[in-house]
Amino acid sequence: MDNLTEQLKTLKQTSKKLATIPTEIKNQVLTNIALKIEQNKKLITDANTVDLENAKNNVTPAVYNRLKLDDNKLSSMVEGLKDLVKLEDPINKTLLARELDTDLKLYKVSCPIGVLAVIFEARPDVITQVAGLAVKSSNALVLKGGKEVLNTNNIIFELIQKAINEVEQYPNNSILQVHSHEEISNLLKMNNYIDLIIPRGGNNLVNYIQKNTTIPVLGHASGVCHIYIDETANLKMAKDIVIDSKMQYPTACNSVETLLIDEKFPYKDDLINALKDANIQIIENPESWSLEYSSNILSVKTVANIDEAILHINTYGSGHTESIVTDKTENVTKFMNEVDSAGVYHNASTRFADGYRYGFGAEVGISTNKIHARGPVGLEGLTIYKYKLYGNGQIVKDYVDGLKQFTHIDLTK
Amino acid sequence: MDNLTEQLKTLKQTSKKLATIPTEIKNQVLTNIALKIEQNKKLITDANTVDLENAKNNVTPAVYNRLKLDDNKLSSMVEGLKDLVKLEDPINKTLLARELDTDLKLYKVSCPIGVLAVIFEARPDVITQVAGLAVKSSNALVLKGGKEVLNTNNIIFELIQKAINEVEQYPNNSILQVHSHEEISNLLKMNNYIDLIIPRGGNNLVNYIQKNTTIPVLGHASGVCHIYIDETANLKMAKDIVIDSKMQYPTACNSVETLLIDEKFPYKDDLINALKDANIQIIENPESWSLEYSSNILSVKTVANIDEAILHINTYGSGHTESIVTDKTENVTKFMNEVDSAGVYHNASTRFADGYRYGFGAEVGISTNKIHARGPVGLEGLTIYKYKLYGNGQIVKDYVDGLKQFTHIDLTK
Repeated sequence: MDNLTEQLKTLKQTSKKLATIPTEIKNQVLTNIALKIEQNKKLITDANTVDLENAKNNVTPAVYNRLKLDDNKLSSMVEGLKDLVKLEDPINKTLLARELDTDLKLYKVSCPIGVLAVIFEARPDVITQVAGLAVKSSNALVLKGGKEVLNTNNIIFELIQKAINEVEQYPNNSILQVHSHEEISNLLKMNNYIDLIIPRGGNNLVNYIQKNTTIPVLGHASGVCHIYIDETANLKMAKDIVIDSKMQYPTACNSVETLLIDEKFPYKDDLINALKDANIQIIENPESWSLEYSSNILSVKTVANIDEAILHINTYGSGHTESIVTDKTENVTKFMNEVDSAGVYHNASTRFADGYRYGFGAEVGISTNKIHARGPVGLEGLTIYKYKLYGNGQIVKDYVDGLKQFTHIDLTK
Repeated sequence: MDNLTEQLKTLKQTSKKLATIPTEIKNQVLTNIALKIEQNKKLITDANTVDLENAKNNVTPAVYNRLKLDDNKLSSMVEGLKDLVKLEDPINKTLLARELDTDLKLYKVSCPIGVLAVIFEARPDVITQVAGLAVKSSNALVLKGGKEVLNTNNIIFELIQKAINEVEQYPNNSILQVHSHEEISNLLKMNNYIDLIIPRGGNNLVNYIQKNTTIPVLGHASGVCHIYIDETANLKMAKDIVIDSKMQYPTACNSVETLLIDEKFPYKDDLINALKDANIQIIENPESWSLEYSSNILSVKTVANIDEAILHINTYGSGHTESIVTDKTENVTKFMNEVDSAGVYHNASTRFADGYRYGFGAEVGISTNKIHARGPVGLEGLTIYKYKLYGNGQIVKDYVDGLKQFTHIDLTK
């Protein structure tokens, strides 16, 4: 057994102990990580300065900004951890309680998934966020960060490990950092030790991971979001929503990439002119209708009706978030039901697709999966459940032979 | 585009229409399938007789019995479909309703997964069961059955298709049967068209599928269930539970394979003798502790304490169902929390792990997955959700700029 396998085996064994850690202890760990980050800002920014110096000639300004940890980001990291303390513990919640027969009671109870592997690029602030989410949801964690901020990642990881070590009742070996880039392909084969992979990064990284592992992957490779302006749309609302969806933060996954305009919409030119005035670059014959520009570019297509709009979205979209601007109730219902995406909106900006805006308090990311968790994923998405059955000697033969009957009474908690 | 891809593309498109089919229409389809099976029993058994004649020299008696459709099985198929009519529609259920701000309301609503692929061996009665589950849960379905009962499968599939065609408001192209064995490896690559694969068959089939696709797979490859007899266990209860768990139906996935006995349990010899009297064959040095015998054989191991028992189960088990027999509350809690399996039982037979016994009314199978659905999976396991957001022109910029604040009020339905 090689070193990585050994470490993952230990991690997997430790993960079984995490389900029983009391909420107070998990919150102590979160508070202690926040404290360590707060007390060691200088240490972190010093390491980050070294990384930035090494990276500056090799990365774009946008990436450089993502690598950089300034005081604002460090404060957000600390605040994020403190926010997690306040959230309800997602573990040990009774999801169903049922009497199967006298003295035979079934409970469906939420529990951790086990071992999460988070593979991320660029942003070192991801570490405290996912470590915090893992602690609160009682999961063990493997972290693999980008090489550009190796020094920053190392110091943050060390501080987290130290914070964990100081809380006696919390197991030390519940978090693991892996380093070399080749380890990714090894991680993807570790079905016996990793239960869920969460990639946080660009399309290339996510695509590569999705195509090269049979371990479940939670996330999204791209965000090709659409807005459909139907014939009854209010012009001002259409302008405001499209401009916000594109320009409020163009590199976000929930920003709009394609605008579909009903040919019967009477104010098409006014709308297009307003978008151009807002510095949006319009492309009416894009190379592909599945492009995610992550910039101020917007594909625009005229469609004959709502059916064509829905077919276009279901064909070229990524299943992320789509919005219809309309005054027609019938079209709202049709759009909401037939568009197969994580988020379907009426008269609202696609930028609302976000765990904090939905009121989840914390977010692991946005999923376009069709199973387990879809849309913005909070702590609940890091849990599964088990069935606990309490009897006093019941055997199945008695029910098969007709000596006993199931009662199946739902029990109020 | 080859023929299979073309057919799957059509199926995928049709699947988008299924989310909006009213419950009454789905129930009409189910009732009509039941009627067609009932009216054509002779046609089905004739086809089955041909298959059985061809298969009889190539299969074991156990498999032969599974291939055979007698009157009992045909009646169960019809009853199963009628039962599905009575079950609550799992689609369009509001799982969360939240005001994000005035006139900005978020709903989390259950919806179908999309296209399910069910790959099954031997048992032709699986077809009506999974077709019925797919209809009720508004999913499209690809079916791939075993070659041994090709004629039987064909006639049943034709009857289902005919029953669907007769219900005008239900789309015809919502179900697809694929034939040649080579199609399995093609199906496993169809990430664009298949959302979930459900294998129903032996370990080899399930293992092969799990290892050769990046499409999510729902099911279990093996059922290596354990019973742990702790020092305080009641002897009679221990006997009854182990005998029921092993002998009530030895080939079931939820039958027990390994018995762990605490070395301090004073009646070990009495227990072992009772098991032998019940025709159970005891093996104390098995080739592997991960063997699923599917027969009257039982591995037995003496353990030092509950910790060793839990470590054994978490190391060699398949995460299916495990039971502890004990009078000690402390050990119950420890076992229930630290054993990482879909079902953890106290003083009850492992054979209770079943959707019908849990009161789910229908079952797709039992999952040992750590995400999406675990344990016996009913209709709910064939659904996911989408977020519907209803606004009147809200944009994110207003919230980022502090002009508006989120209210995040949970709405009662």
